[in-house]
Amino acid sequence: MSKQMFDLTVIGTGPGGFEAVMTALRMGLNIAVVEKGKLGGNCLNRACIPTKYYRSAVHLYQKLPKVERYGIDLDIKGISFPKAKEGKDKAISFLRKSFSQLLKTKKVPVYKGIGRIIDKHTVKVEMEDGSIEQIQSRYILIATGSVPATLGLQVDGERIITTEDFLENLSTLPKDMVIIGGGVAGVEIGYLSAVYGSSITIVEAKDRLLSGLNIPKEGLRLLNRKLKELKIQIKTETTVEKIENEGDRLKVSLSNGESITTDKVLLSVGRVPNTSQVDGIGLSKDERGFLKVNQYLQTDVENIYACGDVVNSPMLAHTSSMEARVCINNMFNSKKEKPDYSLIPWAVFSAVELAQVGLSEENAKEIGLQVETALYPFTYNEKAVDELENEGIVKLVFEKESKKILGGFIAGSQASELIHFISLAIKKGLTAQDIHHFVYFHPSLSEIFTHTTYDITTGKLF
Amino acid sequence: MSKQMFDLTVIGTGPGGFEAVMTALRMGLNIAVVEKGKLGGNCLNRACIPTKYYRSAVHLYQKLPKVERYGIDLDIKGISFPKAKEGKDKAISFLRKSFSQLLKTKKVPVYKGIGRIIDKHTVKVEMEDGSIEQIQSRYILIATGSVPATLGLQVDGERIITTEDFLENLSTLPKDMVIIGGGVAGVEIGYLSAVYGSSITIVEAKDRLLSGLNIPKEGLRLLNRKLKELKIQIKTETTVEKIENEGDRLKVSLSNGESITTDKVLLSVGRVPNTSQVDGIGLSKDERGFLKVNQYLQTDVENIYACGDVVNSPMLAHTSSMEARVCINNMFNSKKEKPDYSLIPWAVFSAVELAQVGLSEENAKEIGLQVETALYPFTYNEKAVDELENEGIVKLVFEKESKKILGGFIAGSQASELIHFISLAIKKGLTAQDIHHFVYFHPSLSEIFTHTTYDITTGKLF
Repeated sequence: MSKQMFDLTVIGTGPGGFEAVMTALRMGLNIAVVEKGKLGGNCLNRACIPTKYYRSAVHLYQKLPKVERYGIDLDIKGISFPKAKEGKDKAISFLRKSFSQLLKTKKVPVYKGIGRIIDKHTVKVEMEDGSIEQIQSRYILIATGSVPATLGLQVDGERIITTEDFLENLSTLPKDMVIIGGGVAGVEIGYLSAVYGSSITIVEAKDRLLSGLNIPKEGLRLLNRKLKELKIQIKTETTVEKIENEGDRLKVSLSNGESITTDKVLLSVGRVPNTSQVDGIGLSKDERGFLKVNQYLQTDVENIYACGDVVNSPMLAHTSSMEARVCINNMFNSKKEKPDYSLIPWAVFSAVELAQVGLSEENAKEIGLQVETALYPFTYNEKAVDELENEGIVKLVFEKESKKILGGFIAGSQASELIHFISLAIKKGLTAQDIHHFVYFHPSLSEIFTHTTYDITTGKLF
Repeated sequence: MSKQMFDLTVIGTGPGGFEAVMTALRMGLNIAVVEKGKLGGNCLNRACIPTKYYRSAVHLYQKLPKVERYGIDLDIKGISFPKAKEGKDKAISFLRKSFSQLLKTKKVPVYKGIGRIIDKHTVKVEMEDGSIEQIQSRYILIATGSVPATLGLQVDGERIITTEDFLENLSTLPKDMVIIGGGVAGVEIGYLSAVYGSSITIVEAKDRLLSGLNIPKEGLRLLNRKLKELKIQIKTETTVEKIENEGDRLKVSLSNGESITTDKVLLSVGRVPNTSQVDGIGLSKDERGFLKVNQYLQTDVENIYACGDVVNSPMLAHTSSMEARVCINNMFNSKKEKPDYSLIPWAVFSAVELAQVGLSEENAKEIGLQVETALYPFTYNEKAVDELENEGIVKLVFEKESKKILGGFIAGSQASELIHFISLAIKKGLTAQDIHHFVYFHPSLSEIFTHTTYDITTGKLF
């Protein structure tokens, strides 16, 4: 049992915990860290980072048949998921080690086990080895993230698996797999699995993929086409009614009367906050299990803050990091900050890379704004042509009167990077004219913003 | 001889001419176009776009030995420049056709030949077929670009060639090649030629590569190391004294006493404005041959404007497009504009991608500013690791007191795209704190800006 009074105990080391640790160390604070699993949490070990690793792999693999245009002479023999899994594990281990090395160098105690807050200054940790430790600190940050929702299904990690099972542990792909849920993780894992050789069916209750995001129809059409080129079956407005054993396979009965036999079912139906283990003092929660926090991310115990998937805000790694910075500030600085959720970009790494920030056309109309939109394809963008990546579009949303940019959507190469320019443009109130006249390097993908704003600023071509 | 009075004659269809045409058509203007060579000018046909095509090719090729980590099983047989040249020609032809198709659809007359301004409203064109045409217009835009400087050497297009010869016509690479000039084109062509299999020597008069750009030493070190990995010989502070025939090879004598025998010499020593043919009315020029223009880009004939490499401003495609938009505005709108050269990004696509905008540390100090800089490597950027592209750095320059960003340099993946965020940040006066707190998608390369600003905003780790 530690006698030391730390400035801060951080419970969970995902993007929120990581950012909190980094910020606190740089502020010279004396901290303790509790992590029940691997350093880096879900994002690094079983969500964002493995997904993008596999996505980089399959995106490149899909490009290879075109590279003879570059004079590259290849015999493409195939693609192996088990080998990619080894590579993925190494990449993640490299990143995890850089984190653990830093903690070691800075002499931060890392308590490996389940941390439970037992009073406002005390976290009791059931250590991996069965021993118990107690950590005393002035402040506590709960950054324990979320766990996959299971719809009450019997997830066995073998035949019925979650996205985490897939991304962390799966080393052999099934011949076929039914993915329940056509949200972000569903279309990402569906895409990469199809390229690695699985036959994929995505079952989605809503009338379209990615229904939680306001994707312009042009973007959704492109995504659907590219998924279908990979022979991915997409069943919208369909739910799973029953999953039964059928020999060593599963029989999945759907609401449309169909049934599919499959090797595996992947559950990708969202996540639920992970507060059950951490909370030993009865912090207030909302009806969905999120910790209640005030506008400064403070729980109802004044020195206990929370960030990330345990609070009710967009369940994204970068939301959590931003909130973590706000929490640390509010603990140790006198000038309090509020998290700003107005410009949180999202991106999807599926058969096409998608990204969006700010208001979609629909969002803007819903809140009563008059809008003007501008659409432009990557088809003739010179850099995109040079890179054999000229499929995609940009759609920008402007306030009709002022021509100020309200939002942007990008489908295509580097969408998840280009979106930050749009995000900053929105934040700074740029008009279509400002975006049109901005000097972009030639040739660059970014130049597309000049072209997208031609119609609005200069006049239509046709 | 045309009787029609056009609103505008555009001479030259490079980035400046193209932008002028696009803008004018969208404004509903009645225009004529003169082009002595291929539509798209140097940039499209023999500079930027072919370079980036080959660069995309070799960058991908260099990555292939690593892709077994992705589970990709390949037999890499080799890389062929002649085949790449075919691919390059097709890509450029695709882009050129989209331009010519547009002109056709919009019924814009394209005079193929050498246009010479003979009075303030008349351009006389010596057509390819030997006939003469005269075009009358209210305004004339000179966008005739530049030609490679030759240092008085006998360029034969076979053994002594320019970058244009290389990028437009060369279909077989020499076994070895001496590149005179270690500027942007020199290090770009040197890099791609080395990967395609040539032995390359770069001879540079100054004490370092890319001496015209203010590259931080960390960036220059990375570039040099990667060029040397390709066995590129770099001879700085060295000039070429003599080039002689030696059998079917060339003997290049250097100022350091060495001599090199080589198949080809590539001249890459800058460009000179191309005004000789266009000017039949004696427009004023400066001592280096640039057309003199006022702050509105007007020549000394009020209805004749000039943009791009013919005027004395940064010789970059995107400078020319920006100036073209300004010219068209100043011709047809009552509110005059001045070109803004304060935030022109540059980028280099060599063995590492480099990009810069705003003030370098040296620039800032030269003008008496107190600066604070921040450096961060891509090593642990999760997306860069996933993409097998985690080599590189970001260096940002801030005004010491205000912590406002003054400039940025990026070496690494997507540098030429990421730089636009920094450019907009400078334009809008963002501070290190603003950049640090901005919400970047996770994982993205762009997140590196949060990390780069940690030291300044939050404190150092060590």
